[in-house]
Amino acid sequence: MAKYDVLCIGNAIVDIIARCDEKFLVDHSIIKGAMNLIDAERAELLYSHMGPAIEASGGSAGNTAAGIASFGGKAAYFGKVCNDHLGHIFTHDIRAQGVAFDTKPLEKDPPTARSMIFVTPDGERSMNTYLGACVELGPEDVEADKAANAKVVYFEGYLWDPPLAKEAIRLTARHAHGAGHEVAMTLSDPFCVDRYRDEFLELMRSGTVDIVFANESELISLYQTSSFDEALKLVANDCKLAAVTRSEKGSVVVRGEERIIVEPIEIDELVDTTGAGDLYASGFLYGYTQNRSVADCGKLGSLAAGLVIQQIGPRPRQSLSHEAEQHGLA
Amino acid sequence: MAKYDVLCIGNAIVDIIARCDEKFLVDHSIIKGAMNLIDAERAELLYSHMGPAIEASGGSAGNTAAGIASFGGKAAYFGKVCNDHLGHIFTHDIRAQGVAFDTKPLEKDPPTARSMIFVTPDGERSMNTYLGACVELGPEDVEADKAANAKVVYFEGYLWDPPLAKEAIRLTARHAHGAGHEVAMTLSDPFCVDRYRDEFLELMRSGTVDIVFANESELISLYQTSSFDEALKLVANDCKLAAVTRSEKGSVVVRGEERIIVEPIEIDELVDTTGAGDLYASGFLYGYTQNRSVADCGKLGSLAAGLVIQQIGPRPRQSLSHEAEQHGLA
Repeated sequence: MAKYDVLCIGNAIVDIIARCDEKFLVDHSIIKGAMNLIDAERAELLYSHMGPAIEASGGSAGNTAAGIASFGGKAAYFGKVCNDHLGHIFTHDIRAQGVAFDTKPLEKDPPTARSMIFVTPDGERSMNTYLGACVELGPEDVEADKAANAKVVYFEGYLWDPPLAKEAIRLTARHAHGAGHEVAMTLSDPFCVDRYRDEFLELMRSGTVDIVFANESELISLYQTSSFDEALKLVANDCKLAAVTRSEKGSVVVRGEERIIVEPIEIDELVDTTGAGDLYASGFLYGYTQNRSVADCGKLGSLAAGLVIQQIGPRPRQSLSHEAEQHGLA
Repeated sequence: MAKYDVLCIGNAIVDIIARCDEKFLVDHSIIKGAMNLIDAERAELLYSHMGPAIEASGGSAGNTAAGIASFGGKAAYFGKVCNDHLGHIFTHDIRAQGVAFDTKPLEKDPPTARSMIFVTPDGERSMNTYLGACVELGPEDVEADKAANAKVVYFEGYLWDPPLAKEAIRLTARHAHGAGHEVAMTLSDPFCVDRYRDEFLELMRSGTVDIVFANESELISLYQTSSFDEALKLVANDCKLAAVTRSEKGSVVVRGEERIIVEPIEIDELVDTTGAGDLYASGFLYGYTQNRSVADCGKLGSLAAGLVIQQIGPRPRQSLSHEAEQHGLA
């Protein structure tokens, strides 16, 4: 029996979150809604122009791991921090959530990654990520016992940005498939898809990836088509299972000819979309590894995503297992 | 004309905030609702038992300064951080809010102060503060130009905990009174009052302090009486003006024989009481330094306090000047 439900792999990042107006994004050439990669110098500059902020552990797959643990699933995580203050915060938060996290931290430079996240009045988040220590994640960080002992290995498309992480992913995927388990990925961001389109398609078509998470614009970017239905048909061909989120329109789960439509939950107030896709994946994968129907997996994803966008910060502050119970999804 | 509306002086602290259940407080001997002082070793221990957290700049008078600036007032701040990561966060956040903050940071140990704040399901916060660099704040940190150029100097009773800050306060108060300005303090915490009752009373009775902020339990502790009316009578005798907050019962402003009752604002959901008293003081002092009626000062205090308790973290994420406008208090 697998020791973990899901092993998540990603860029280990602490978020620095502040509100801003639309003009700030324009004035600072920040692409709205996207993950903008920045260097140390630009990180300094943006921070000096940033309003009062709060800090919270983040990182796409880290948020997913935290969500799975909050649902009551057994999660593990690979990601690289530095042995500095932000690294301690990241490590504390993910372990305190119950996630097994043992990747060896860097002893010195580069420092732990941070993403300056600007939230506009419409709740949309625009990220500015300095990768720092994440560039050092490599195949030597693959813990074989975890890689072979998770029902699903899940990783971020973002990991194609640092130089060595993709080797870690391919190695982990071999462990997983060797043990008869599955591999999932998120396409992460439409610009990320644009940077690595051919490699992402190769991952899917070669069977390295079995399950794909994407939002509508990422999927459209992947297949360079303006037709959503066409994109769904193509992704159904390229992987065993795909879950495609569509913001306030909910999500569609695609499996061969099947199309399962999942409604979103009702929202009182959209505060901050940071973590929406990550938490959708957490609910879906929690359900999936508990052998729930894919419709239920989608509902669990909608629930977690719907909760996280009603607060500041990318990780759930509620107990998601309690919330699932309250919503009749336990 | 005074360059600043309010100069705030306090322990410069970054808050580390997590939820916990009631049992956690009991198991860890944390006095509920209080500010518990801890040493470095206990800070390590509590952090290792703390759930996933978020970090936000705090410190009682720092929160007040941030609130005043958010209302559109001109605020300055004295407080001691270390030149470390938490110190950078504190400095960034208070300056980004528009507060003049130039206290020289420590170059090395002790590190910047942090307070681990546990929020129970009822929204009450229980603080565990490691004072770190704050113990080094002293009279050499008094910037004479700021001390003499603020309409009101406001400080925390908490400053009696570190060894040298009280000398800084007395020096600042002399500058302020010498320039014909007023001095205000908050009693901070009922246990803090218990530690320094005689000194606090001496500050008031000697005229070092003109204006007092307190909540009901602090005032009751100050005068060791079980009668709230009796405590109001005593405080009216001991200072020119006092504003006493009473949680969901609003506040009472006391000036000689006058008693001005201020209603609280309506709350949708009580999330976290951290910063309630600090933000009440910010609204009150903003109004006071704009020559508003004391009734209006109290309403501005109620507004800011009511907003901050509906979010996680001790500083306003809204523009308080915008909120004042929306509530007909501009």
